[in-house]
Amino acid sequence: MIDTTDCPQADIQALVPLAETLADAARQETLPRFRSRALSVETKSDHSPVTVADRASETAMRALLAEHCPDHGILGEEEGSSGLDRDFVWVLDPIDGTRSFVTGSPLWGTLIALSWKGTPVLGVIDVPAMNERWVGCIGRPTLYNGAPCRTRSVTDLDQAVLYTTTPDLYGERDRPGFEALSSQVAERRYCADCYAYGMLASGWIDIALDPGTQPYDYMALVPVVEGAGGRMTDWSGAPADLRSSGWVVATGDSALHATATRLLRGD
Amino acid sequence: MIDTTDCPQADIQALVPLAETLADAARQETLPRFRSRALSVETKSDHSPVTVADRASETAMRALLAEHCPDHGILGEEEGSSGLDRDFVWVLDPIDGTRSFVTGSPLWGTLIALSWKGTPVLGVIDVPAMNERWVGCIGRPTLYNGAPCRTRSVTDLDQAVLYTTTPDLYGERDRPGFEALSSQVAERRYCADCYAYGMLASGWIDIALDPGTQPYDYMALVPVVEGAGGRMTDWSGAPADLRSSGWVVATGDSALHATATRLLRGD
Repeated sequence: MIDTTDCPQADIQALVPLAETLADAARQETLPRFRSRALSVETKSDHSPVTVADRASETAMRALLAEHCPDHGILGEEEGSSGLDRDFVWVLDPIDGTRSFVTGSPLWGTLIALSWKGTPVLGVIDVPAMNERWVGCIGRPTLYNGAPCRTRSVTDLDQAVLYTTTPDLYGERDRPGFEALSSQVAERRYCADCYAYGMLASGWIDIALDPGTQPYDYMALVPVVEGAGGRMTDWSGAPADLRSSGWVVATGDSALHATATRLLRGD
Repeated sequence: MIDTTDCPQADIQALVPLAETLADAARQETLPRFRSRALSVETKSDHSPVTVADRASETAMRALLAEHCPDHGILGEEEGSSGLDRDFVWVLDPIDGTRSFVTGSPLWGTLIALSWKGTPVLGVIDVPAMNERWVGCIGRPTLYNGAPCRTRSVTDLDQAVLYTTTPDLYGERDRPGFEALSSQVAERRYCADCYAYGMLASGWIDIALDPGTQPYDYMALVPVVEGAGGRMTDWSGAPADLRSSGWVVATGDSALHATATRLLRGD
């Protein structure tokens, strides 16, 4: 759970409209380039793909932050970081699921998080190709396209639906935990990136997890999941904050979360 | 390639509007039930899920066929077959990707095929949650939302994007072929069902394949893929018709198809 002690909730809630403006601006850069045959794809040093859509989307969001919150820090996937010592740091992923984006699948999104002293307190999952948006903010219920949404309370593994982005991301170290958990669920499905965490917040699925993610991949998801009644941490149960391992797991139900983290740890 | 010898093309093309009317009718039954918390899911004898949405969708399509084409045969996923000895047989999958449907993922579709003497000559992939539709018909270019679409000509495996529904469907017998092919592509992605074949027809991806499918899973895909310039057969290169093995593979480019089937066969 997000620790709310001393957190300036009112200030954070006042920033929700700005976060949504960032999402709108990112959409203007991404959606027109989706499925464009002219789009060229480059490969970064970590072998992940990047396009002009990723870069233009992050640039547009950074320009808005420079205008409205010049004192806040920024951590972005494509353009690095500045001001990480500030209380407020924005964490941006212009296109989460670039592999979906460049292959024409609609299940990619823009992720916008605001962290306060390292803890994610506001998050937006915007999915332009589906015209869907989840907005989570500390002290408020998560909104799905403007209406409150709730996770569902599935407590038994054999009734649970699990999503992860792809089994190909699991290596020798984390595959045993993944298999221990995912072999016991009712359904395991692949290829969703951030979309799975939105689906979980809306109560359509029960478990979402990924290995080896970066802050720009997971920070925005935490307020969305927790504001909808779910639980999201790293695989050990430690907070999914700026200092997290990046092996993250979310569940709709708290009891299910305890079961999931136990299996992932191999206890 | 579809063998067009003696095929009554004009008669078949005249049935395209009816096929689209079937898709419209199916949408009326599926889309309102998508993401409904009241939807109950049953498990069939083959362990696949089925819902009232599958059944109502197929019933609506059968009623239209009984009215407009009483002399044609029908093979449907949920309600069995009749008149399979007729020249014209409709092959219906009310919801392809029921596992996506019941878990809130939008990548499911209604599949409608018309076969002539066992060969698929007309196919519709309708994706209600995305408001997307592909229509393929012998002698005509495939339409994507009403406009002609074309596959792309990627001939090198290391440039190709491959989709398959899930690696969990591959067993001891077919995993070696799948690994031989999919380990050499630029990207392999999961979780698309029929949607992958539409993506291929639109030139967004290069290879789509699945193991152990049924006629209602693949028949509608063939005219869509081939009418867009692609190639679709079983893994041995034999026609994907009513008598097919059901291990199917589609490519955007013909040279790539030869490479793919060679690797799948283990030559």
